[in-house]
Amino acid sequence: MLGYLGPEGTFTHEALISLNLDDTTQAYSSVGECLDAVRAGQVSAGMVPIENSVEGVVTATSDSISNGDPLQIRAEVLLPVVFGLYVRPGTQLADVRHVITHPHAAAQVRHWLAEKLPQAEITEKGSTAAAAQEVSHKDSSYDAAICSTGAGELYGLTAAASGIADNPNAVTRFILVSRPFTPEEPCGHDKTSLVVYLNDDHPGGLMEVLDQFSLRGINLCRIESRPAKDKMGNYHFSIDAEGHVAERRLQEALMGLHRTCRDVVFLGSYARADQVAQSVKESVRDVDFEEADTWMSRILHPGFRGVSPQE
Amino acid sequence: MLGYLGPEGTFTHEALISLNLDDTTQAYSSVGECLDAVRAGQVSAGMVPIENSVEGVVTATSDSISNGDPLQIRAEVLLPVVFGLYVRPGTQLADVRHVITHPHAAAQVRHWLAEKLPQAEITEKGSTAAAAQEVSHKDSSYDAAICSTGAGELYGLTAAASGIADNPNAVTRFILVSRPFTPEEPCGHDKTSLVVYLNDDHPGGLMEVLDQFSLRGINLCRIESRPAKDKMGNYHFSIDAEGHVAERRLQEALMGLHRTCRDVVFLGSYARADQVAQSVKESVRDVDFEEADTWMSRILHPGFRGVSPQE
Amino acid sequence: MLGYLGPEGTFTHEALISLNLDDTTQAYSSVGECLDAVRAGQVSAGMVPIENSVEGVVTATSDSISNGDPLQIRAEVLLPVVFGLYVRPGTQLADVRHVITHPHAAAQVRHWLAEKLPQAEITEKGSTAAAAQEVSHKDSSYDAAICSTGAGELYGLTAAASGIADNPNAVTRFILVSRPFTPEEPCGHDKTSLVVYLNDDHPGGLMEVLDQFSLRGINLCRIESRPAKDKMGNYHFSIDAEGHVAERRLQEALMGLHRTCRDVVFLGSYARADQVAQSVKESVRDVDFEEADTWMSRILHPGFRGVSPQE
Amino acid sequence: MLGYLGPEGTFTHEALISLNLDDTTQAYSSVGECLDAVRAGQVSAGMVPIENSVEGVVTATSDSISNGDPLQIRAEVLLPVVFGLYVRPGTQLADVRHVITHPHAAAQVRHWLAEKLPQAEITEKGSTAAAAQEVSHKDSSYDAAICSTGAGELYGLTAAASGIADNPNAVTRFILVSRPFTPEEPCGHDKTSLVVYLNDDHPGGLMEVLDQFSLRGINLCRIESRPAKDKMGNYHFSIDAEGHVAERRLQEALMGLHRTCRDVVFLGSYARADQVAQSVKESVRDVDFEEADTWMSRILHPGFRGVSPQE
Repeated sequence: MLGYLGPEGTFTHEALISLNLDDTTQAYSSVGECLDAVRAGQVSAGMVPIENSVEGVVTATSDSISNGDPLQIRAEVLLPVVFGLYVRPGTQLADVRHVITHPHAAAQVRHWLAEKLPQAEITEKGSTAAAAQEVSHKDSSYDAAICSTGAGELYGLTAAASGIADNPNAVTRFILVSRPFTPEEPCGHDKTSLVVYLNDDHPGGLMEVLDQFSLRGINLCRIESRPAKDKMGNYHFSIDAEGHVAERRLQEALMGLHRTCRDVVFLGSYARADQVAQSVKESVRDVDFEEADTWMSRILHPGFRGVSPQE
Repeated sequence: MLGYLGPEGTFTHEALISLNLDDTTQAYSSVGECLDAVRAGQVSAGMVPIENSVEGVVTATSDSISNGDPLQIRAEVLLPVVFGLYVRPGTQLADVRHVITHPHAAAQVRHWLAEKLPQAEITEKGSTAAAAQEVSHKDSSYDAAICSTGAGELYGLTAAASGIADNPNAVTRFILVSRPFTPEEPCGHDKTSLVVYLNDDHPGGLMEVLDQFSLRGINLCRIESRPAKDKMGNYHFSIDAEGHVAERRLQEALMGLHRTCRDVVFLGSYARADQVAQSVKESVRDVDFEEADTWMSRILHPGFRGVSPQE
Repeated sequence: MLGYLGPEGTFTHEALISLNLDDTTQAYSSVGECLDAVRAGQVSAGMVPIENSVEGVVTATSDSISNGDPLQIRAEVLLPVVFGLYVRPGTQLADVRHVITHPHAAAQVRHWLAEKLPQAEITEKGSTAAAAQEVSHKDSSYDAAICSTGAGELYGLTAAASGIADNPNAVTRFILVSRPFTPEEPCGHDKTSLVVYLNDDHPGGLMEVLDQFSLRGINLCRIESRPAKDKMGNYHFSIDAEGHVAERRLQEALMGLHRTCRDVVFLGSYARADQVAQSVKESVRDVDFEEADTWMSRILHPGFRGVSPQE
Repeated sequence: MLGYLGPEGTFTHEALISLNLDDTTQAYSSVGECLDAVRAGQVSAGMVPIENSVEGVVTATSDSISNGDPLQIRAEVLLPVVFGLYVRPGTQLADVRHVITHPHAAAQVRHWLAEKLPQAEITEKGSTAAAAQEVSHKDSSYDAAICSTGAGELYGLTAAASGIADNPNAVTRFILVSRPFTPEEPCGHDKTSLVVYLNDDHPGGLMEVLDQFSLRGINLCRIESRPAKDKMGNYHFSIDAEGHVAERRLQEALMGLHRTCRDVVFLGSYARADQVAQSVKESVRDVDFEEADTWMSRILHPGFRGVSPQE
């Protein structure tokens, strides 16, 4: 069974369906509950949102995934963000006073709301689908939900406005996580996710982290600082790097970070949803590492040279 | 006149009061409105929240300040975050079903709420003081506000619970901004704030940015990546560096960034609220730069050597 | 009057002639004497050898030029190294037992000598031309000189063998030095020579030196470590960098070195003999520095914005 | 049998004797011949000079050792340089006109000669001991040899002047080399010698080489550029690094160089003659590498966690 941030009809639900996995599904009402169910083994994996291109990382997911029993990413999914203002049949746009939605959705339609519904009061709900469900009650105190078409239709609402996202190119990224497992084989467009905690907050620390990657010819897809919970001015870094932990260059870089940083949390190696193929430059391919192993072992054991009588 | 993110009684209001400025004040109902009033010259400066140690940068402030007509930071203030659950006199904790507050406050009492009021529905409001004001109406549909003692008392509420922040060390940082002005004299514990837009998203770009600082012996207090609005995977960086733009080392580093980055927004040089004194290492003091100027001018104009008949 | 490492007929003499300078010349019998004459004002400039592609830097020149009163390079000349074995008319190759030449010439014909004259004893002389002059005395105890065609002919010798340099591509580099002067205008294929003394011998020191150049987009043509005279394991660096000290990027890099290193000796900006044009990347052209100056002065004096009524 | 740069009485001979090795010895008349004898197996090891603190690397040794069949350094020896002017009994200092010595010795007494024997002609000989031997012939055309006390006495000469080296702190470094062998155990003050050929002459290349060391916390004792024989402006680097190839940090750095450089020649890991103990910082000790291995193997094979029934 697979979990997801529900209820039915959320973008997260759509993301899970898009993977065409042949399994039953179970909705959870928060990211935390979904990940807890994964950790407890109640579901084999769970789909949760991790980032959108307007607000950045989804804080709750990012924090939950790297604290507590280890979890590992199996897959990522990218979905375009398409919002509408959904109302009970009969409600007019001009009548809308109380709007309910998820805070990230609110952030992504801020300008539209300021222009079209400047007087509306916005109430926060755990998901856009839950907001749609709330509005679907005929005695709800809310007039409209900002949600996806799928959620609006699922709960019998009609669109008072559609395509209302401020940025038509906005995309949300979702991840499917499960308990630790042997990473799957590299596919050629792989990505590795990490959280890195620096040993202290000396500024050179971040340069050293970046150097561990660049010296092994590894490009970063994303790096974000996150404040530590305990102290202003103390940060850790959430990093997506090109490549797969089965590759020698990634292994050496990750072990370099492990040796020099306070903590490194491995969150998985998996196929990039955007399928951008990686180019591994000469000198950091697995074959280059193996060739260097051979060279080093001849230095350490020169007696093995010339063992063969034919040489 | 000075603006602030109101209404009266917000943490931001407390931050403004703490500066003991001898001026009238004006509350604004959102960060955007407050900054617009500064830009329009309706107030000479405005106080807004910029960062808290749990959720990180306040997105709305960070985005508003670096987009639009230029603004510049005059001062920063740090306040400890102390929240209570404030209700109309007579309401019992056990009766609380509908809670209203600011989303960042909600995030900072998440665990307390999950434990003590697991069934409560949380509604988002523009500020914790506005939430207290809402609850103060005797026919409000909300039972409680999460807000500061100041705001609770201001609106005649009583504390159903106090000290409810999950992290007792949480701190919020506020900034006082105005239109561009000649930065004040350095005080010895100065800080300079910038937003840096990289030329493209090659990973080495961030290392080059960090190198512009480290080669001039400048420590960073904070660096945060922010996603660009337009494209997943495109980032800019919000940076607080030690030191003051009146120092030569800062000038050279900032001009280096200006030459090599797509854009650099200068947000001000001002006294650090934590008053941590900076140590400027030999070789990057102003006197070292001046000495190097003299050396270079002798290289370019060696004829000036020996001008003096005594030499 | 111009000095050169003589006597007449040396490669250095040829190098000086190749510049077509309209002035009288004076030969000196050692690099040190030639440079002393420049320092004393007895000649306006002096030509000396500085590097050959087999043995590297000419130690005597390199040391003399950077110690003592300052000298500055005006021009460089590259000459192919073409050696012959020159004898008094009548002497046969098979009879040659005692050979005299300059040590660098000896090094460059080492293999030829080992093969053709394995029994010959080699004696060191201050220059190849002086060696030819020595052999020209009919009662000389030397049978042959290794020298250039010019020197051989000048002293009435004949070639027992020619084209005997082990490496037919060998080149020697000469420099014309004078007392400090305002460097000439950049010509587009300029080079700047320096000697850099590190503050101490920490290994990061060299990386910092290189970083001063690379952060300003400056390529190095050559870097050589030279042992300090006083202590094993203590080094300074002789550097040729692309570009001219009249360029802002060079000025900032040199001043950065001056601020952070124990000492920096400027040896001149001059046209590269190989005429390889430099490419200055965007962000470090003079126009980029000037644009950054303007930007910084607006930060420091924002009142100047909009002063003009036309703006 | 052990070879050395002879004849008997050279500094190199003294260096070999100082090791107290219980073996017969064989003098060779040049560094090349000595190393050839090692390569051919005629001697089990050979002692040769590699560096002095005035002239730097002994070119002939440095080139011979890294070209041809591989050789490996077993030990290094440091000797103070103490020169005297040795003559046949009866010769007075004032009578000395023709002096014979090794070119490096000449360089190290240059100032003394200029002051005391300005008219003397200096002839080059393969070693200072051979020069003494030459002078010892009663019909020699040379009046004096510059050599060590040992060599002067060995050949029956007397000192016309002693302690004549310009720099009383000058030291010469000698190395004992043999055919490749399994390096001995680390002793805590180890050194590793390499020659590194860059892939091309882009200036960033040297920074990358240095970074391979610094990222693994390895200090360099010495780095010298050497011009390539074939092309002006093309360099390789001779490097002595702290530490022993049996250490994981050295192995990873060397393999990193092997992967990214055109060629890397390993010249040995051996005890430093100056016995300066190395300090290996936390994060690059062998135990840190092993701990990182364990961590990585749990990432790659998470199933192995919890194998133990007690867990």
